[in-house]
Amino acid sequence: MSDEFVVKSDPELWEKLGMDVARFSGMPPMLTNAYRNIFLSQQNRPERMAYFDDMVANIHTGRIQEIYDAKEGGKPVIGTFCVYVPEELVVAAGGICIGLCGGAQGSIADAEKILPRNICPMVKSAFGFKVGKICPYFQVVDLVYGETTCDAKKKTWELLDRYVPTHVMEIPQMKRERDKRLWVEEVKDFKVAVDRITGNETDFEAVAGGIRTINAKRAALQRLNALRHHTPSPISGRDMLIIQQIAFYDEPVRFTEKVHELCDELEKRVQDGVAIAPKETPRILVSGTPMALPNWKLHYIIESAGAVVVNEESCIGTRYYKDLIDEGAADMDQQLERLTERYMKIDCSCFTPNDDRIDQVIREFEASGAEGIIDYCLQFCHTYNIEAVKLREACEARGIPFMAIETDYSPDDMGQLQTRVEAFIEQIKG
Amino acid sequence: MSDEFVVKSDPELWEKLGMDVARFSGMPPMLTNAYRNIFLSQQNRPERMAYFDDMVANIHTGRIQEIYDAKEGGKPVIGTFCVYVPEELVVAAGGICIGLCGGAQGSIADAEKILPRNICPMVKSAFGFKVGKICPYFQVVDLVYGETTCDAKKKTWELLDRYVPTHVMEIPQMKRERDKRLWVEEVKDFKVAVDRITGNETDFEAVAGGIRTINAKRAALQRLNALRHHTPSPISGRDMLIIQQIAFYDEPVRFTEKVHELCDELEKRVQDGVAIAPKETPRILVSGTPMALPNWKLHYIIESAGAVVVNEESCIGTRYYKDLIDEGAADMDQQLERLTERYMKIDCSCFTPNDDRIDQVIREFEASGAEGIIDYCLQFCHTYNIEAVKLREACEARGIPFMAIETDYSPDDMGQLQTRVEAFIEQIKG
Ligand code: SF4
Ligand code: SF4
Ligand code: SF4
Ligand code: SF4
Repeated sequence: MSDEFVVKSDPELWEKLGMDVARFSGMPPMLTNAYRNIFLSQQNRPERMAYFDDMVANIHTGRIQEIYDAKEGGKPVIGTFCVYVPEELVVAAGGICIGLCGGAQGSIADAEKILPRNICPMVKSAFGFKVGKICPYFQVVDLVYGETTCDAKKKTWELLDRYVPTHVMEIPQMKRERDKRLWVEEVKDFKVAVDRITGNETDFEAVAGGIRTINAKRAALQRLNALRHHTPSPISGRDMLIIQQIAFYDEPVRFTEKVHELCDELEKRVQDGVAIAPKETPRILVSGTPMALPNWKLHYIIESAGAVVVNEESCIGTRYYKDLIDEGAADMDQQLERLTERYMKIDCSCFTPNDDRIDQVIREFEASGAEGIIDYCLQFCHTYNIEAVKLREACEARGIPFMAIETDYSPDDMGQLQTRVEAFIEQIKG
Repeated sequence: MSDEFVVKSDPELWEKLGMDVARFSGMPPMLTNAYRNIFLSQQNRPERMAYFDDMVANIHTGRIQEIYDAKEGGKPVIGTFCVYVPEELVVAAGGICIGLCGGAQGSIADAEKILPRNICPMVKSAFGFKVGKICPYFQVVDLVYGETTCDAKKKTWELLDRYVPTHVMEIPQMKRERDKRLWVEEVKDFKVAVDRITGNETDFEAVAGGIRTINAKRAALQRLNALRHHTPSPISGRDMLIIQQIAFYDEPVRFTEKVHELCDELEKRVQDGVAIAPKETPRILVSGTPMALPNWKLHYIIESAGAVVVNEESCIGTRYYKDLIDEGAADMDQQLERLTERYMKIDCSCFTPNDDRIDQVIREFEASGAEGIIDYCLQFCHTYNIEAVKLREACEARGIPFMAIETDYSPDDMGQLQTRVEAFIEQIKG
């Protein structure tokens, strides 16, 4: 199987998207290699991972073609960088919402020709993808919708707007009534921006449909994550990570179906006592900043060191799906208000205070049967980095083994991280 | 004169304030030395600088005693870290508002025991001052009022609150009508917090008085800065910097008077052709992040290299005083709204978009007769750092010599900065 897997190429399609085809052509083979080594080398994977492997194989071709066709058919295609931008409203308008966060080292140098070096690699990677014309998703979107969550993103959107139309949603920094009032207005602006692309105003029924679709997707991921929490784990952390990454670019209805099919298989595995690793394998919860595609660095290190990742408290993880939208709204105002209320529950460290997140990490630690927490902070991400002080304290108070890692996408610190992670796992084993 | 100058000590007062007296005792002699070397070594300074030298000599004693006495007399004493927190309302309540931003390397290590290393030195220095109990101003305040301007500050307040009561004002990230509505509510909350300390509600007249007092202070600084713009400059950049730093801890009415007295002297100097440096001295505008006491590093480097700093586009600089509050409000609601409107004009890079600031820098460049711009960015300050991209472009488009510096408070990069600044000055000389 491992040798059959190939990330596909479609230079003709890329050309149509205005990409730097010569340069991008090197990407699929690299991804093929990395995916084979990190994912396909695993023993005893669930069979239903085949769909998700396929989604990776088609990441630069089949799925792009689908999106391209939708766009040609007048559907809005919106790129986002944050789970605070409500994809429900894009789906309601018949459109496609794509997560554009960058997880690759390869585009950082492009970004650093313009941006300062010492900002978060996710922001640099994404910006570099657009500047270098080396991401088909960036090329296929009608517009991107940024937000004001962190300093680095907020200011980068001003520059990104030169390369692709960039709207910005103001996300408040607190969660009081007055913040909610502002937030609801921002959500309404987003709806207007999406509807402007189709030329039609999405109505109550359409919004209700968008909410149902994305609620169902989040519920499927909840089910999957709960199954994965079983000891011993029926699925590896890296397979869970890739599924959660695919959630940001796959078609939501199909994705939901496929997640449920995998869940059915995992249920059976749990019944049959089939696991990805023995019961005594140390179990790690990873908390912190998101890991955008193809950022698999920490999971690879942890699982290569003989542990298993059992939960991602992350935006590419539980923060994306832990909350659903109340579907009982009577009119559109109420609908958008309930939608906003759901989004206000996301506990990103860009909020102050944000102690709910600390409680949430502890809850997820308990629910997942984890034995230690590795907090993952992308370099120069001030908010998660400072919030880790409180998280460490909460863990120390409860006797939970805790380690904080700050890193970027470069391979330079791999050896050092391996050593630290191995020592941490030894500590857990006692 | 240079040998008479001594920064005074008052261990008894410091003891009463709960300071780490043993450790702090080393501070005044260090400051004495630095001030003598950097300020008092200058030739031909305006005589009226004597008052400001005195304010430095009394920084840890006389002025602290004044504030201590006021506090004992029931006056509110509020510490702030940002020019977005409206001191008018503190003055209206008969109180004292103190800028607490840290400009010293000496407290950074205290902060780094708790905070991440790679955040802005201003935040670390301030936090370290409190944690180490080595700043009398931090010890004398009733409470501090932070804000949500940047990621590093916003998250640090959550930790600072453990050492001193810390309130937080939400500063929006855009400047639309909906942001103004939220902002006015935040201003009202601030007034309530200040009034709670006195137990009295400040009324319309009192607020009008506070506005007049601070307007007068800002107007005095405007007058001073306009005089300083004369070619050749009648006053040095470092003397201007220390005055603008003193503006954040001196009694405002007295300070205003003394600034006007200095202005009278400078007017005479201009008439008489007396300058701090010859007409042909290269003239530099410094833009960017604030320089809190005792951060004189860049000015010292620039002026030692044979140039003169003719403008600080900074919060300890023009951003603090370029705008006044409209005094014609008919009732308190209108008063607070006009106050907020003034604050909304401050063009901090934490806003998006913030192109007004670029225009403002160019305007100040022209008004000050500067010949080049050195943009000063405290290390890890993402917003100013990214905004410098646009500032550089604006300068390049106009043929204005531009250099961006990112630095912290450590002396380690002094040599490197000297070399770069010298080269820049040579470039200006042509
Ligand atoms: S970490 Fe915060 S800013 Fe980043 S995607 Fe998540 S919610 Fe958005
Ligand atoms: S990881 Fe942190 S710095 Fe990076 S984009 Fe997310 S919030 Fe911003
Ligand atoms: S630079 Fe911005 S955050 Fe800092 S003091 Fe000035 S206005 Fe406040
Ligand atoms: S200089 Fe920048 S990072 Fe530092 S406190 Fe001011 S806005 Fe924040």
